[in-house]
Amino acid sequence: MKKLIGIDLGGTTVKFAILTEEGEIQQKWSMETDVQNKGENIIPDIIHSINHRLNLYRLSADDFLGIGMGSPGAVDIEKGTVSGAFNLGWKTLQPVKEKIEAGTGIPFCIDNDANVAALGERWKGAGDGCANLVFITLGTGVGGGVIVEGHLVHGKGAAGEIGHMIVDHDGYQCTCGNRGCLETVASGTGVVRLARDLSEEFAGESKLKWLIDDGQEVTAKIVFDQAKQDDKLALMAVNKFYFYLGFACGNIGNLLNPDAIVIGGGVSAVGETLLKGIEEYFHAFSYPHVRTSTKIKLAQLGNDAGVIGAASLIKTQKTKRTLAGKAK
Amino acid sequence: MKKLIGIDLGGTTVKFAILTEEGEIQQKWSMETDVQNKGENIIPDIIHSINHRLNLYRLSADDFLGIGMGSPGAVDIEKGTVSGAFNLGWKTLQPVKEKIEAGTGIPFCIDNDANVAALGERWKGAGDGCANLVFITLGTGVGGGVIVEGHLVHGKGAAGEIGHMIVDHDGYQCTCGNRGCLETVASGTGVVRLARDLSEEFAGESKLKWLIDDGQEVTAKIVFDQAKQDDKLALMAVNKFYFYLGFACGNIGNLLNPDAIVIGGGVSAVGETLLKGIEEYFHAFSYPHVRTSTKIKLAQLGNDAGVIGAASLIKTQKTKRTLAGKAK
Repeated sequence: MKKLIGIDLGGTTVKFAILTEEGEIQQKWSMETDVQNKGENIIPDIIHSINHRLNLYRLSADDFLGIGMGSPGAVDIEKGTVSGAFNLGWKTLQPVKEKIEAGTGIPFCIDNDANVAALGERWKGAGDGCANLVFITLGTGVGGGVIVEGHLVHGKGAAGEIGHMIVDHDGYQCTCGNRGCLETVASGTGVVRLARDLSEEFAGESKLKWLIDDGQEVTAKIVFDQAKQDDKLALMAVNKFYFYLGFACGNIGNLLNPDAIVIGGGVSAVGETLLKGIEEYFHAFSYPHVRTSTKIKLAQLGNDAGVIGAASLIKTQKTKRTLAGKAK
Repeated sequence: MKKLIGIDLGGTTVKFAILTEEGEIQQKWSMETDVQNKGENIIPDIIHSINHRLNLYRLSADDFLGIGMGSPGAVDIEKGTVSGAFNLGWKTLQPVKEKIEAGTGIPFCIDNDANVAALGERWKGAGDGCANLVFITLGTGVGGGVIVEGHLVHGKGAAGEIGHMIVDHDGYQCTCGNRGCLETVASGTGVVRLARDLSEEFAGESKLKWLIDDGQEVTAKIVFDQAKQDDKLALMAVNKFYFYLGFACGNIGNLLNPDAIVIGGGVSAVGETLLKGIEEYFHAFSYPHVRTSTKIKLAQLGNDAGVIGAASLIKTQKTKRTLAGKAK
């Protein structure tokens, strides 16, 4: 039985795992992402880390079916390159596949980080191996991945831009240039924005309003925590957050009727309350058959979704898995 | 070379075609749909018509790879059954595959009519064989079909319910029970509804307002024709119609980034003006990369989309194409 290597490349840490072909994690480790000097050390560091671990565990390249990686930025899955990953310091095109294959001797494949997390949740998490799944990750921004019949949908390259689905015709200005994108209201920063805006016209007892008016730092966690304490302003903000997410989930359901829409990312730590809040509006906005057949679920794998999904790329990605520049 | 039979089953007529494996129509004919007596004659009529034509053209069951059919109602593609096709008089489950295979001796497959038209436009029409296409049909209602990597997306059975995507949080009541569905505003009846509602508060010169106030019958064609004549009320209604369609297309694009979103159905006869109207709002609501890579197109096959797409089911549907009840 050959093994898989999964890598989750992030702006703060790089997570690694060695997995069985069935997706069981056998070893896990991580390292800091060195974003200095335009991130030029990141790839050499990854190669060094893999070779060091293989040596430690007395494994060789032949023991592995491949390496899969999830990366931020714009990923060219055919060429195995990444561009515009600003949180890594990568402004120019990076030939990731070419370098990692040359440095490790192991076939390599890559996809976008949110796509890879979608694959992970489908394979070993909330998706439970279902055929059709949509993954939404709620963090500082909102990302997503769409899986149809077990395969990621890429379209012309930007499929799964769920954070930029429009949920309000006349909503907040988004960094993408449009108005009313889901990301402007359903991210960590989004729920704080909703709270700040609502607080201007809010008249009544509210600790959250007091914090805002006092100029204290208000985070998404504070808004959700205050909502749990029945703070009226916080409840209003969180309710709007659920409304917009439920609206997006409803339209995703009406278009694709997947087995599940899985909610992950840092904000999903809010847990069951968040699930119930989204479901209420999903039910209001989804077509009757969709309402009963598409389930809204919380992600289950936490930080492991990335490495597990990345490893699964080796088995699901349709591009050739020969070493770059080598005929097999 | 074997041939294909495509059938487009509608509430008024049943359209038939004999096609080559490459999708070229060799023969075309049609018959009226007999919706009397709960539509109990429809299947026998279809069987009789096929056998009669095969006899006429001196063809036998062995000359055919299969029969494909597009049907209204809820289609079970695995079992080859249809239920709830009220415009055919079919209230109960109809074993369409079983009966047609028994009556013709030719393997049979079936899908929803809008899905089948999507396949037709992808194969021989505006889609030009592209991998990913979304089809929207604008008629009395709004239907749709989603194609990913050349295959129809069914999800849990209701994928492609584009007419029930929500485009207005607080819009008109829809027959499905929800509010603000695309169908309530972007169908033939929808644009008339928009015109009637806008006319109530409209003050100014407008022939359309005069027609409405005079109690005359107002159709979608009249609204679009008046808009062409620069009637101010008609332009307002048509502009809202484009706004909602562009909003839906934007969100479809942001989720799937297909090669094309193809607009068909009776209302699409409006032509290039309609395309430009939708594009304007699609550009406003789509993510930058989606805006430049997903094309909005008019359907090209007209009435032939159904029979061509139905025939293509024979080559693309993944279910077994053995005769029901027969081992091969």
